[in-house]
Amino acid sequence: MKLLLIGFGVVGQGLAQILRDKAAELKSKHNFTAEIIGVATASKGALYRSSGLDISALLQAAEGGSFVDFPDQPGLRRDMTVREMIMIGEADVLVEASPTNLETAQPALDFCYQALEAGMHLALANKGPVALDYAGLRAKARAKGLLMRYEATVMAGTPTMRLAQDALAGCEIRSARGILNGTTNYILTQMEKGLSYDDALAQAQAQGYAEADPSGDVEGWDAAGKVLILANALFGGKLAMADLAVSGITAISAADIADANAAGQRYKLIARATPDGGEVKANRLPLDDPLASVGGATNAITLETDLLGDITLIGAGAGKLETGYAILSDLLAIQRRLTAKRNPPANPS
Amino acid sequence: MKLLLIGFGVVGQGLAQILRDKAAELKSKHNFTAEIIGVATASKGALYRSSGLDISALLQAAEGGSFVDFPDQPGLRRDMTVREMIMIGEADVLVEASPTNLETAQPALDFCYQALEAGMHLALANKGPVALDYAGLRAKARAKGLLMRYEATVMAGTPTMRLAQDALAGCEIRSARGILNGTTNYILTQMEKGLSYDDALAQAQAQGYAEADPSGDVEGWDAAGKVLILANALFGGKLAMADLAVSGITAISAADIADANAAGQRYKLIARATPDGGEVKANRLPLDDPLASVGGATNAITLETDLLGDITLIGAGAGKLETGYAILSDLLAIQRRLTAKRNPPANPS
Repeated sequence: MKLLLIGFGVVGQGLAQILRDKAAELKSKHNFTAEIIGVATASKGALYRSSGLDISALLQAAEGGSFVDFPDQPGLRRDMTVREMIMIGEADVLVEASPTNLETAQPALDFCYQALEAGMHLALANKGPVALDYAGLRAKARAKGLLMRYEATVMAGTPTMRLAQDALAGCEIRSARGILNGTTNYILTQMEKGLSYDDALAQAQAQGYAEADPSGDVEGWDAAGKVLILANALFGGKLAMADLAVSGITAISAADIADANAAGQRYKLIARATPDGGEVKANRLPLDDPLASVGGATNAITLETDLLGDITLIGAGAGKLETGYAILSDLLAIQRRLTAKRNPPANPS
Repeated sequence: MKLLLIGFGVVGQGLAQILRDKAAELKSKHNFTAEIIGVATASKGALYRSSGLDISALLQAAEGGSFVDFPDQPGLRRDMTVREMIMIGEADVLVEASPTNLETAQPALDFCYQALEAGMHLALANKGPVALDYAGLRAKARAKGLLMRYEATVMAGTPTMRLAQDALAGCEIRSARGILNGTTNYILTQMEKGLSYDDALAQAQAQGYAEADPSGDVEGWDAAGKVLILANALFGGKLAMADLAVSGITAISAADIADANAAGQRYKLIARATPDGGEVKANRLPLDDPLASVGGATNAITLETDLLGDITLIGAGAGKLETGYAILSDLLAIQRRLTAKRNPPANPS
C-alpha cells in the first residue's frame, strides 16, 4: 500500500514509527506492507519518491524540524506540491494529518476531493473535512467506490468508530455521549484537587495538553467538531456547527466544583450526539455514571443501544502512537477492501 | 442461514426474539436472513422442521415450559435427537446455548465436534467447550474451514471478543483484567451500602442474579471459565482450570469492605488473563481505576495494549436480549464467511 501523508506532526510521525517498528508483524499477521511515497507539510517542506521514502531518515529529519536534512536518494523530489503528488496517481491512500481547521476545513478539504477524484482512499486524522463536509465526502467516496476512514478524529486510536460502526452491527445506537476533549477533562480534574481554573489551565499548558491560545479546547469547539463527526457518521445527520449548542468550561469556578462534590457529583464537559442534534455542555454527573470516574486527559464515550443498553469505552484521546495507530487501523480496513477489489468474486451476488 | 439451537433458555429465546423482531432491518442492512430449523432442550423437548420453525409459536411454547404445545405443521418432527439433527446436515450453524458445565463441558462438547464434522459453523453461549477445549475445537474448525465464535461467553453481547480480536488488529494485547461476574459484583456493591455478605447474597438471589446454590459465582468458578476463554483465545494459551489460581468473595467481610473504603479503595473480584496464566481474586482497587466505579451487575474489562495503553469496555454481562444479540453478532460474522465461500475469489492470492 502506497501512502501520501499530508502533515508530519504527532500523527504522521506516530504512524511512520509504527510502520517501521511493526513492519514484520504487520506483514506476517495481516499480510500488510505499506510505503510512504510522499510527505507534504507546511513547515518542514515536502518529499516525494515513487519507490518509497526511508522512514528512519524521515523521522530523523522531522526531529530536526526540516526535510532539508533528508538525504538525497535516486528519484527523490523535494519540489512537488500536494496537488502534484495527488495527480501523479501513484498512491493508494491519502493520509490527511495536517492541523484541523473547523471553520473552512481547508486546505485539507480540497486535497480530500482531489484524492478521491484521483482514485485514492482517505484516512483522516484531520477533523475538519469529516466534521464540516461528511455527507459530501461520503457521497463522492461512494460514487468512486472508495473508502473514507477517520478513526483518529474521535478518541485517537481507542476504537470508537470501529466499535460503533463495525462491532455493534445489528444493534441500533440511539445516542452517544462522552468526554471527548482531554484538555478540559484534565483541567476539571485538577480543579477537583483544589486548583483554581487559571492555575489548572496554566498547568495544562505546562504539561503540553493545552495550547497557548486554549480557546478551541476550553470553549468546547474541539469537542463540538467530534460531535459533528459522530452525529453525521452514526445518525446520518447533516448537522453544521451552527446547529449545535456549544459551551465550554470557562464559566466553571472552584466554588461550582466544590458545590458539585458536596452533592456527590462531578463536573464533566459532555459532548452529546443524537439522531436529532448535538451539544457540548458541562454537566454535573452522579459518581456512578461511568463517565464520572474518567479523570485526567483520558477520554470516554457511552453509546446507548437498543439491545445492549449502555456500552462505555474508555481510553486515550491523544498521543503519538495512539493516534498513529488509529491511522493504521484505517489502513488495515482499507487493505481488506483493496484485496477484495483485486480478487473480485467469481459470481458477484 | 439455517440454525440448530441446543438449549432454549434465556439466550435462545433472546436470539429468537431478535431474529423475529429485527428480521426486516437485518435483511435490508446486512442482507441477513436466518431460520431456526431445529431446537433441542433437556426440559422442553425437541422440534425439527427443515423449512423452519415459526418463531412466535416457539417463544409461546417455551413460555408454557414445553414444546408439547407447539402447533403441528407439515414436516414437523418432535422425536429427533441432537445427533440426528446434526447428522441430517441441513443446518449452517450450531448455536450451543445449553447450560455451562465447567467440569466436562458435556454433552455440549460432543455436539460441537459432531457439528464441525458435519460441516456446521459454531456459535457458542455455553462456556464449557470454549473454556475446556479451546485448542481442540479451534484446530478441528480450522481443519474443516469452519468458524467458531463465542462472543456470548464473556460479557454477553458487550463486544469483548470483537474488540479484542477484530477492532484492535495491529495492536498487541498484553493482559486482560475485568469484572466478569455480575453476581459477585452486585453482592460487593450491596455490601458497600452496609449489608452483610449473607444479606447481600440473599438479595442477589431474590433479584435472580444468584442461584440457589451460589457457589459457581461466589467461589469464582464462573469468572475462572471466562479467564480460560480469554487466556486461550487472546494469548494462544493451553491453560486448564487447574492452572488458574481461583478464589472468590466468600471470605470478604463487611469489616474488610469498610476498611478498604476508609483507605479510598474498593473490593472487586478481578479476573485476569495474561500470556503466562490467569487468576480470579478479590482485589482492593484505587477509586481512579476505571474498574472500581463499575457497580451492580455490570461487567467491565480492561485490555492492556502496546500502542494504546489501557482500553476499558463497560457494559451488560447478562440478560436475554444482550446475550441473544451476542449470538446474532456471531452469526453476522459467520455470514460474511459464508458469502465469501459461495463467491470465492477469482484469483486467490
